[in-house]
Formats: sequence, C-alpha cells, structure tokens
Amino acid sequence: MKTPVTLLTDFDDFYVAAMRGVVVSHGVPVYDIYHEVPPQNVRAAAFILRNVAPYFPDGTVHCVVVDPGVGTERRSLVVEAGEQYLVGPDNGVLVPAARELDDDPTFYDAPYDDPESHTFHGRDVFAPQAARVATEGIRSVAGAPVEPIELDVGAPAFDGEARAEVVYVDRFGNAVTNLDGDEVVRRVGYGGEVVVDGRILPFERTYAAVDRGETLALVGSHGGFEIAAREASGADALGVSAGDEITVETKEG
Amino acid sequence: MKTPVTLLTDFDDFYVAAMRGVVVSHGVPVYDIYHEVPPQNVRAAAFILRNVAPYFPDGTVHCVVVDPGVGTERRSLVVEAGEQYLVGPDNGVLVPAARELDDDPTFYDAPYDDPESHTFHGRDVFAPQAARVATEGIRSVAGAPVEPIELDVGAPAFDGEARAEVVYVDRFGNAVTNLDGDEVVRRVGYGGEVVVDGRILPFERTYAAVDRGETLALVGSHGGFEIAAREASGADALGVSAGDEITVETKEG
Amino acid sequence: MKTPVTLLTDFDDFYVAAMRGVVVSHGVPVYDIYHEVPPQNVRAAAFILRNVAPYFPDGTVHCVVVDPGVGTERRSLVVEAGEQYLVGPDNGVLVPAARELDDDPTFYDAPYDDPESHTFHGRDVFAPQAARVATEGIRSVAGAPVEPIELDVGAPAFDGEARAEVVYVDRFGNAVTNLDGDEVVRRVGYGGEVVVDGRILPFERTYAAVDRGETLALVGSHGGFEIAAREASGADALGVSAGDEITVETKEG
Repeated sequence: MKTPVTLLTDFDDFYVAAMRGVVVSHGVPVYDIYHEVPPQNVRAAAFILRNVAPYFPDGTVHCVVVDPGVGTERRSLVVEAGEQYLVGPDNGVLVPAARELDDDPTFYDAPYDDPESHTFHGRDVFAPQAARVATEGIRSVAGAPVEPIELDVGAPAFDGEARAEVVYVDRFGNAVTNLDGDEVVRRVGYGGEVVVDGRILPFERTYAAVDRGETLALVGSHGGFEIAAREASGADALGVSAGDEITVETKEG
Repeated sequence: MKTPVTLLTDFDDFYVAAMRGVVVSHGVPVYDIYHEVPPQNVRAAAFILRNVAPYFPDGTVHCVVVDPGVGTERRSLVVEAGEQYLVGPDNGVLVPAARELDDDPTFYDAPYDDPESHTFHGRDVFAPQAARVATEGIRSVAGAPVEPIELDVGAPAFDGEARAEVVYVDRFGNAVTNLDGDEVVRRVGYGGEVVVDGRILPFERTYAAVDRGETLALVGSHGGFEIAAREASGADALGVSAGDEITVETKEG
Repeated sequence: MKTPVTLLTDFDDFYVAAMRGVVVSHGVPVYDIYHEVPPQNVRAAAFILRNVAPYFPDGTVHCVVVDPGVGTERRSLVVEAGEQYLVGPDNGVLVPAARELDDDPTFYDAPYDDPESHTFHGRDVFAPQAARVATEGIRSVAGAPVEPIELDVGAPAFDGEARAEVVYVDRFGNAVTNLDGDEVVRRVGYGGEVVVDGRILPFERTYAAVDRGETLALVGSHGGFEIAAREASGADALGVSAGDEITVETKEG
C-alpha cells in the first residue's frame, strides 16, 4: 500500500471531497484526520495534528487547511519532520507537530502559481502539493528553507503550580490542557488530589476510579493534564472552554 | 486489495484519526462504520454492528470501541465469526454481530500489556490488535476461548402482540425496533394496519405508500419493524426515543 | 490503485457503512463525497456533485442516494459522462454533474430486481450497481438509453442584473448562488461594488480584502457568485437560506 495523504481542515462540509478527489487522482490513498476543527482555530488544529501525526506511518503526508489568511500573501509550507511530511499554510499550524516528530524539522517555502480559486487553496494549492510530495518527493514542491511563523501549544512548567490553557474540549466534555501530565504525576501521584481553579479534584489513572458524574483530573490519552468527569462533562463542571486559562496547584498550594 | 479493518466508535472527535494511523501503519486499509454512536451506548453500537457487518467481505476485521469500562479490568475480546473477525471490549457490544455472522462464533480473550494510555484503549489496545489480526491472523492475538458477557438486542416473538424496544432513531426520525419485521408481515400483511402504543398505523412496504407527513409502520432496511413518517419523523409522531418500549398489536388485538 | 467509487447521500447515519461494505466487497476502494446533504434535498446534492466530480480521476464511479422516491417506480440510472460514471435515482440529481463532465453525456436505464429491502436502495440497488460498473464496466449494468428527468441548478444570465438562487449555505455561512461569477467579474470587476437585495457590497477577490465581520461578494471556489463575510456569516448578514432568491445588480442598476 502506498503511504497516504491525510487531510485536516475546518471545512465540515462537502469541500473536503474535492481535496480527496485531487489526491486520489494522483493514485494516492487519502485518509481523514478531522474536519470539524472549530472554524479558523489554528491552535486547535495544531494541537490535533501534533497528537495524531505520530501514529501514522513513515512517508505519510499530512495536508492541513485551517487558514484564516487565505487570499493574502501568506506562504505555503512543506515540512520534512522525521520520516513524515507536512503541507499547509505558514500560520504556525504545522509547527507543534513538526517539533513532535523531529527535534530539528526543516521548513521549506512551497511556492505556488496563482490558483484557479482565490478562496479554496485547500483544493487548488495544498492538496496538489501534498499529492506531489507523496508521488514525486519533497523536492518537487520545496523551495528555499524558511523560518516558519511560530506557534506553541504547550507545555508550561509545573513546580507545584501552573497556569494551563484548555486547548481542546472533546465531545465527551474532557477539557484537555497544554500542561504535561507527567509532571503532575511526579508531584502529586495517582490517587492524590489537585486544586484546579480553587476546586479540589481527585487525580486518578482513569475515569473508572470515581463514581458516575464525579469530576476528576487525569493524564489524557495525549499525555496532557485533563479535567474530566465520569460519564459527564469535566468542562461543564468547571465552566471552561477551549482557550480558557486555569490554575493547577498541588493540594498544599 | 487487502481485507480492511473497520472502525466503530462513540468518539465523534479527532481521536478516531489516531486509530486510523495505527491501522494504516500496518499497511491495512481502514474504513469507518460510524463514530457518532450515542456516548457509551453499548446497545446502539451492538445494533449497528450487527446490521452492517454482513455487508463487508470475508476477512474483514471490525474494531469496536464503545467502552464505558475503559481503565477497569474488563477484557479485550477477539472473535471469529463466519469469515470475519471482531475486536473490542468484553461488554456485549460484539455479541449480536457475532451471532448474526455465525451460528457458533468463537470468542477469545485478547490479553494486552499495560497500554501507553489509561484512557485510550481504542488507539493503544484495540486498533493494534485489529491490525495484527488483519496482517498476522487471529492466532497472533487470541488467548484462551472465553464466554463473553452477553447482550441481546432482539428479537421478541410476535403472536399478535409484542412489546418491542426502540433500539435506534436515525437522522430521518425512523424509530427502528428489535421486533422482527417478517413476523408482522406474516400476521398483518402489507396494506394492513397495526396498533402501536394504541395508535392505528398503516403497515406498508415503503414510505411512498402514504401521504407526506403521514406516519406508518414498515419493515426497515435491516429487517426490523420500524415506525416512520414520509418526509417527517416517526419517532416524533409517537413521542419515542432509543431505549423506549412500545406495544405492537394487530388491529383486532 | 483501482479507480474508486464515491458515495454522496443524505443519510448522515450509520447506513452509509453498509454501502461501503458492499463496494469494498467488490475489491473497490470507496471514498466519501458527503453524507450531510439536507434530507431529501435533490438540488443541493446535484449542486455538490457538479462541483466535486470534476476533481476525481477518470474511471471514478459516483454513487448518489438522495432519493425521495425510494419505493416508487422511479428508475435507477447509470450515466457515462466524460471518463467518469454516475449511478443514482432518476430524479435529476445526476444531471448537472453529467453535463459539467461532458457536453453530451449518455443516460441509461439501470434495471434492477426487486431488492432485499424496500427502503434502502442505496445498499441494495445503487451501491451494487456502482461496484459492478467499477469492476465489470458500464455494460454490465446499463439497459436502454433514456431521457433523464431534468434538473437545472444554474446559471442565470447577468446583464447588469439577475435573479440568482442561493443553492447552498456552507458551514462558514457563505451563501453560494447559481449565478456565474465570471459574468460579474466582467461587468463589475474586482474592487467594484454590487447591489444584492438592495444592499451595496464590495465585490472582491478574497475574504481578506475586507475587515473582519464585514460582508462582501466574491466568486466562490466553484465559480459561483457568493455572499460571504470575513470570519462571519454572509447568509446571516443578508438573512438568506438555501432555496431563496436574491437580486444582484451592478451599482448603477
């Protein structure tokens, strides 16, 4: 099986299908990462890509279109990161995944001709570039090495307290933060307690450690400190949304 | 083309993509069954898998993650059913599909090492197991044969009356029940009438047999007795939701 | 890689998966176009297919199931259009795409035996036909050439004014019309202004030409005249929904 192209967008509409068609037309299989990224939310898309990309095989080309700057002069980038490739706009969305995949990823400008559409670079610029990387290699698309626009979705230090950002609230209501869960494990230990926005919560290995409906803190599936509730919404329990900051303290704090 | 792995979850979020990555990393094509199963609704997922699995080819490995018990001691199962394979938690979700595919399916314990995450067994346990079944065969994953936790989503007898369960309400508002449609056909016949929760409804071959907006009973696409309305919601007309019981009687009843 | 079958439906539910299984069982890869077409909205589905199909490779078989007439005597059609194939009900849904792909497409009756289900022709009629076209060629399914039921989703002339139809509102709130954008470009020119329902709007190349929240007109990604707003909803700004007519005039008009 050929290595695939993946698609990650905020389209949540039939527009994705034209990108699939472009990739398939190059004889390359295409898989979805996610298309319901909150509209124009570059930080959420960057977080998702960083968490998901490592599970794809060598040679995969991830094509990301969360692009508030479409139609402006912003560059297209192609990135070599570990054994994978990333294609998308130069707005930071590719950066956290690139650094997760590779200590020293290389970012290249990916110049493009004036596309058919001024508003749909996903179909007319990024998908064709991703398909070419998959079929002809990165040199077919890469221009000069460049410094990308930076974006950092984590991870604050935890020395007994930290301000963390809720970077994502999933459909279960889990409030995923950018705080590294391992640091909390070291300081607090499973079975201990943390204080989140002034509220004492059990810090457990898994949802099943608390009763139904009870709120807890844990290390989420992506290694981040997370507020959850068993068969309920941790985000609702704390009244937080993506983008909010929360304080996390050890109980003695 | 290699036989595929399918994914059925209640994730409805980007988490599915990491499972896709795991499967694709084994060189196996992956297809979605559905990811918007109502959260933690094992019965709905079991119903969906039973109805959809028979349409997939021999060798398919269905990977199901609707798993309220994640993080507890519940087992992982791998099932040989007809010429297909099922992988998922031992909570009953695989059972109706297994018995639909095979009169005598074999359930095996599928032991796993402590996974990377305590909360995301879909990515860290079930997807890797499904991919191994697809590439190395069931022996690579199967431990001892076991008796699974049972779950039965159908089908009550109909001797002129029955209590049926609404197991699923689809996006069109069709209220799909666990009552075998064939029995109603034999007793009532198309063009006749049935009494559902005390309300007389025409029993027809197809939606188009009634006027727009009118409520009817029919045999749904999965062979189940179903309450529908032409270009409207049968579930709303009867005021029923998934999990509700309804009485179904012949008109004389 | 084999040429794929694509699926376009209004199912928005697990039913799509049975169609995937049918296609995969024929050894043919299957890709989604879109499954959240507004229920029974044949015009929206026709618009989507016309816009997306050209981006798929030669040999692709597009299988469309938006089918208010399921269970009636309506025909199934198979269409040869350019180097692609279309399969679906004879209700007009295939016509705009067929004419987009080919100046002179050929429509054939695609007779079918009484299917397993009276309500799920997507699984029992159209998906099997599409898979056979993909594997055995169009002759395996095509009966007599026929005149299809017509459906026209565009495109009114623009001689300085026009009545246009909003054929689709996407998740960003862009109101996509059936008016050919090129004609507006010729008459008005980028940087000019148009009057839409009596309201003066800038006519620009891209969203980024206006301030955040500001409403504008532009040529959408499918070549249609479109009302949008930068990081906001153009449809809300004008108070229009799919199916509404709007007047478009040059400013002098």
